[in-house]
Amino acid sequence: MQTRVSSESQEVIIGPDQPVAIIGERINPTGRKKLAEVLERRDMGYVQQEALKQVQAGAHILDVNVGISGADESAIMVEAIQAIREVVGTPLCIDSANPKVLAAGLQVYKGKVLVNSVNGEEAKLKEVLPLVAEYKAAVVALTMDDKGIPTDVSTRVAIAEKIVNEAVKLGIPAEDVIVDPLAMSVASDDQAGLGALRALAEIRDKLGVNQTIGASNVSYGLPERRAVNCVFLAMAVLNGLTCPITDPTVWPVRRTLLLADLLQGKDEFAMNFISAYREQNPEEA
Amino acid sequence: MQTRVSSESQEVIIGPDQPVAIIGERINPTGRKKLAEVLERRDMGYVQQEALKQVQAGAHILDVNVGISGADESAIMVEAIQAIREVVGTPLCIDSANPKVLAAGLQVYKGKVLVNSVNGEEAKLKEVLPLVAEYKAAVVALTMDDKGIPTDVSTRVAIAEKIVNEAVKLGIPAEDVIVDPLAMSVASDDQAGLGALRALAEIRDKLGVNQTIGASNVSYGLPERRAVNCVFLAMAVLNGLTCPITDPTVWPVRRTLLLADLLQGKDEFAMNFISAYREQNPEEA
Repeated sequence: MQTRVSSESQEVIIGPDQPVAIIGERINPTGRKKLAEVLERRDMGYVQQEALKQVQAGAHILDVNVGISGADESAIMVEAIQAIREVVGTPLCIDSANPKVLAAGLQVYKGKVLVNSVNGEEAKLKEVLPLVAEYKAAVVALTMDDKGIPTDVSTRVAIAEKIVNEAVKLGIPAEDVIVDPLAMSVASDDQAGLGALRALAEIRDKLGVNQTIGASNVSYGLPERRAVNCVFLAMAVLNGLTCPITDPTVWPVRRTLLLADLLQGKDEFAMNFISAYREQNPEEA
Repeated sequence: MQTRVSSESQEVIIGPDQPVAIIGERINPTGRKKLAEVLERRDMGYVQQEALKQVQAGAHILDVNVGISGADESAIMVEAIQAIREVVGTPLCIDSANPKVLAAGLQVYKGKVLVNSVNGEEAKLKEVLPLVAEYKAAVVALTMDDKGIPTDVSTRVAIAEKIVNEAVKLGIPAEDVIVDPLAMSVASDDQAGLGALRALAEIRDKLGVNQTIGASNVSYGLPERRAVNCVFLAMAVLNGLTCPITDPTVWPVRRTLLLADLLQGKDEFAMNFISAYREQNPEEA
């Protein structure tokens, strides 16, 4: 299946026959003090810089999360979307735990946006999916529900299937649901990597939908986290990960995804990898 | 299937349910001038150092190739096997293009050795497989034949199947054939990585045998070769590579294989990865 998201000027096609689409994760104040500060001051220059930087590093879609406690998140989301639009034409992913913020973003967004996220909780399904349907958006579906995050593969597949079915009932095509099977730390559960890799493969084989994942959870608590994340990403792409949420400005991460494309025959004459390499090493170009 | 190789004192089990087994590649004079020189002088101290270094870096099996032009390769192979046995108990892989050298090595080896290699050429099959049968050894089977190295997946699978069948006819169990589906450079053929990954998966699914591969070919002609090799190794392990021939003294390579184990649920409490990390970073231990 292919998921298409767009801005006024650009369309991104996500699919197993396409190169990996990178959803840039940097516009998110969680653990980023400087971003939290500028968002609180409504200073969008820094947000614009982060947008530009990620697009220059190969992001295909930009996640926008402006959740800071005590602030008017809806108003900031609207300002951020408008500010980013001034500097890049990249499609966005509106990211909030609060459906009202998602609604505010959807109202001002021009194009087909990705909504981040819904999950299998009854309340979330009822609040988020109608919005996605109304605005003909695409949506990230986390495989967790009212019972929490399952550790077994079959429950994750079942939750993904349930969300896809609920979406289809509301008129959202299955291809506009992007499943996130939620990677957990292998430091606390040594079967967690295998579980995530199997969930990716089963969801791909059973539902055929596109999948995203935040790879960095998998390495939490381990040394050499970047290397862990990169090995996981390479394996995950082979099992059905088509649009990871990650930081493309970290060269080893971007390189891993470019090489995963190349090694799967999706980079003609290795041009994408070599041109990105040359950007990183201008003295050798 | 499980392949067991052994020395007098140690047994290594290779299999899809086991952690990746590393066949250390450093005892091979190809492109290594210093090693070629000491082999010519029959100075085995350096060979012993290379053996020890690789075992300390996690090699499970040591490849031994002593092919230098104009020298008595059989005599050197015998001396190398005996010298290595003095310093490590690790099972060996006797590596030569010359069946007489393989025979000389087999005569003095104590245990169940891995022979590297046979391929689908009629002459090779006739010369090498009877030796493997006679000494109850295991053998690496390259998927090439009298027509050369095939680029398509189905011919590689067919050659692998043919070699396994010929081996079984001579009384060599199928599990003692380790297939090498031969990775080629993605710089000269951008479909070569995909071809190797598919060949690994098909050979695993159809024949169930263990597989090795020399990952470094895949990156020939590209920048950042080590990164290319590591991403390929991570993907290859997921598709059925169980015993790569590689250099475990290169930490990013060893790390990739340890992390591939961890992310496949084969490293309890991440102990193998963490203890190897601490060896690399003693100041943090």
